[in-house]
Amino acid sequence: MPNKKNKISVFAPATVANISCGFDVLGLCLDTIGDEMTFIKTDQKGVRITKLEGFDLPKDPNKNAASVAVMEMLSKANSNFGIDIQIKKNIKPGSGIGSSAASSAGAVVGVNKLLELNFSKTELIAFAQEGERIACGSPIADNVAPAIFGGFTLVKSTNPLQVLSLPTPTDLYVVILHPQIEIKTADSRAILPEKIPLKDAVKQWANVGSFVSALYTNDYNLFSDSITDFVVEPYRSKLIPFFNEIKAIALQNGALGFGISGSGPSTFSICKGEKTAREVRNQIDLFFKKTNIPFELHLSKINTEGVKIISE
Amino acid sequence: MPNKKNKISVFAPATVANISCGFDVLGLCLDTIGDEMTFIKTDQKGVRITKLEGFDLPKDPNKNAASVAVMEMLSKANSNFGIDIQIKKNIKPGSGIGSSAASSAGAVVGVNKLLELNFSKTELIAFAQEGERIACGSPIADNVAPAIFGGFTLVKSTNPLQVLSLPTPTDLYVVILHPQIEIKTADSRAILPEKIPLKDAVKQWANVGSFVSALYTNDYNLFSDSITDFVVEPYRSKLIPFFNEIKAIALQNGALGFGISGSGPSTFSICKGEKTAREVRNQIDLFFKKTNIPFELHLSKINTEGVKIISE
Repeated sequence: MPNKKNKISVFAPATVANISCGFDVLGLCLDTIGDEMTFIKTDQKGVRITKLEGFDLPKDPNKNAASVAVMEMLSKANSNFGIDIQIKKNIKPGSGIGSSAASSAGAVVGVNKLLELNFSKTELIAFAQEGERIACGSPIADNVAPAIFGGFTLVKSTNPLQVLSLPTPTDLYVVILHPQIEIKTADSRAILPEKIPLKDAVKQWANVGSFVSALYTNDYNLFSDSITDFVVEPYRSKLIPFFNEIKAIALQNGALGFGISGSGPSTFSICKGEKTAREVRNQIDLFFKKTNIPFELHLSKINTEGVKIISE
Repeated sequence: MPNKKNKISVFAPATVANISCGFDVLGLCLDTIGDEMTFIKTDQKGVRITKLEGFDLPKDPNKNAASVAVMEMLSKANSNFGIDIQIKKNIKPGSGIGSSAASSAGAVVGVNKLLELNFSKTELIAFAQEGERIACGSPIADNVAPAIFGGFTLVKSTNPLQVLSLPTPTDLYVVILHPQIEIKTADSRAILPEKIPLKDAVKQWANVGSFVSALYTNDYNLFSDSITDFVVEPYRSKLIPFFNEIKAIALQNGALGFGISGSGPSTFSICKGEKTAREVRNQIDLFFKKTNIPFELHLSKINTEGVKIISE
């Protein structure tokens, strides 16, 4: 019989990586879009996926991001326990809002709490990166970092892993448009050039610096001006239907910034205040309905907590 | 007879551009290295260089950075007055610590005050950029910005001109080593590649972001970790004699960061506290004396004011 110490459930949030100026570096955490995951402590060692609802993902623990991240953590902790994982997957894989990162982040935060392992958030990110390695082919940190820290994050370096938690205004809302088309992450990476013009790189790092400054000073004009992408968007936006039209709608209706979420096809519109966000959402909805491309729209405030414990 | 309203003298500081991670974007202002400039209001229109001591620079007002910047400002202000400029030049041209920027910045700040023109600091930077255009061939802002704002600055964009003044700890000191060799700015630019690897650019903008964050949070470890240059230093350091040896001496003796000042040949060592800075200065002095290359060493705290009025 499980007692209250033997089981924990978490909400594992979706995330937006890059935020236009900060390719592979910046990210933010969403609040109302995410998976539900339950972890049960077992005397039998090993990690098992005992339930998987929502989307068709590997149940083999060596191939699922959540179980791989937990195995990495249990191995580091020399734990005598095992874990059964139940996943209710709400974030569609391949949507560009950190589906695998949610699984990895939710798993390590949940099991860290359940087994009282006391790993730091940065250590948890490192375990979750192993989940990303299985799911995406590379131990990227720009989605797991905001999923674990909440708010805005900056991955300062991956080797050694250094992640900064940035100040996060509480009145920011994000509209996510997810056109239901498939872009393979590999294709989305392959379309990028290996080298970029130095003059564009200079503009990009000026914007990363001013983006960070804007968060510390609550300067929404500067924040808005900094969400610009000279490097990646010119390539990847071609893969996203009606990108320029949606961008114009978002900005004309008051969004502070608009861009590709991660490697797409989702896009994000960051807005000050829920009212503006609703208007942006509604205008995008009106436009996209006419395209006959199936889509989903989400509206979320920014989640400053990251993965949340639902019950234990 | 000049009354107190007809004449003003200023201290025009040297500056360090780039600060390793922020090529063409970041800069800082020095305190004890700089030129002295005097401006005299005249009824005769036009701008004249009436005195020039220190180094051999153009006295033709159309070719001197200081006068060109002032002419730009007077033209914008539709001023009925003229200006005589006296310059005591202490910053050697071509040293990499913003010699022409000091002339341009000192001139626009001095004359703005003398004629009570009330231009904003950002407007003054734009005028000073015209001085830079004459002296360097390009209207660069990364030296004139810290010379005018003081402290650490970030040039967010040049078109439109947007400059951020960043928080500046008051316990930082800078050691400048100026080996007396000539590097032409044109050569120093030409050695840089037009394109850089995207993966290096990512590391660089992560560092710009963390550098800015470190200044807002007074995190000296992060500040130190962020002063790294994956893009420019590998090329330009080859032009600077004993670069790697000096870098090792600076960091081993406690400098938080070390790099090329602007386009060189000067290097900077940023230190916490004057005691550490003196030790770094002394160790570099001991080493460089053995090289038989003539050199100058300066030690300065960071100047949070920028151009200073000496008398009026």
